[in-house]
Amino acid sequence: MKKQTFNGSTMLSPVPVVLVTSKNKKGESNVFTVAWTGIMSSEPPLLYISIRPERLSHEYITETMEFTVNLPSKNLVKLVDYCGVKSGRKNNKIKECNFTLKKGKKVKSDYIEECPINIECKVKNILKPGGSHDIFISEILCTHINEDLIDSNQKIHFDWADLIVYSHGEYFPINKKRIGSFGFSVGKKKKNDNIIHKNSKKNSNLK
Amino acid sequence: MKKQTFNGSTMLSPVPVVLVTSKNKKGESNVFTVAWTGIMSSEPPLLYISIRPERLSHEYITETMEFTVNLPSKNLVKLVDYCGVKSGRKNNKIKECNFTLKKGKKVKSDYIEECPINIECKVKNILKPGGSHDIFISEILCTHINEDLIDSNQKIHFDWADLIVYSHGEYFPINKKRIGSFGFSVGKKKKNDNIIHKNSKKNSNLK
Repeated sequence: MKKQTFNGSTMLSPVPVVLVTSKNKKGESNVFTVAWTGIMSSEPPLLYISIRPERLSHEYITETMEFTVNLPSKNLVKLVDYCGVKSGRKNNKIKECNFTLKKGKKVKSDYIEECPINIECKVKNILKPGGSHDIFISEILCTHINEDLIDSNQKIHFDWADLIVYSHGEYFPINKKRIGSFGFSVGKKKKNDNIIHKNSKKNSNLK
Repeated sequence: MKKQTFNGSTMLSPVPVVLVTSKNKKGESNVFTVAWTGIMSSEPPLLYISIRPERLSHEYITETMEFTVNLPSKNLVKLVDYCGVKSGRKNNKIKECNFTLKKGKKVKSDYIEECPINIECKVKNILKPGGSHDIFISEILCTHINEDLIDSNQKIHFDWADLIVYSHGEYFPINKKRIGSFGFSVGKKKKNDNIIHKNSKKNSNLK
């Protein structure tokens, strides 16, 4: 297949798209949408979010060094888009989106009950490459998961959560039918039934 | 919905899953699978890949400070899994997978022709948090894209590429039917037809 070559741009695709909640020193909450996020390390579990310095959430998270990543289901896609377009400086997005905030367990920032998975994070390091975004490298302290995603063997079914991705300016749902699991190419099929902490290890083995 | 709380682990989901090609100083190539990757900055375009220090690709990329991210379609999922399970120290994965390597434009590492999108990267900084993975922060120098993904308006259709994601130890295809585009919640629908560089800007506006 013939290819066209383009100058460098953000072509990695698809990427996650999440709602990030945070608080400032006064305890005021904000929410915004992030697609520039990913896992950086399995042990310790690290993730990052990249934030434009002009964002209100940049100010809030720099003040408290804590935030929560909320994974949205596809029924929330319009609100996910809205929280990426609008600024907390002008809009009370949490109120406008009618999100239910729940008290965090290990961080001061609240999490969004309507999102099936919520990840509490503590910022360890802020990188400032000097361009459009600063990079907040953070430790994952704990995760809240809807009980209806966990079966009797404590296996978590992310595929039941209707999660979405962001691809080149568009939002897409995940196809629920998996096309493989880690190790299937060499016959490691039984590992699919591992419980949560083993699945986490399995993730870490991917790289 | 009642939730269960778990200790910190790599619960961000879904995440990308890509094939990374690299060369060592001698010009020998290797390929391995990475899910711990993401966009860090829009301008300059930065992405990272996290690599376990014991990986052969860690050695190769540290030697040459260059690599290429190849985005696989779902028909390659078994090879994607295989390249994550097997080590280049014991297996010639490029030969076993019958990948066609093409010469890079701006880096010495080759790209995989069978992958519809290929992203050439130069390492700018290696972070070593001291845990399971080192983090290779890299600049995106250029991208090769299959011509059959580009329409007459030069709009790139990533949704035509059958890309896949990794979610909690399993591989899933993307549903081709998009459920929104950036700005749709506030009526910015016409922007969907922007050409590539505008779409790139649109991505950068998301955060």
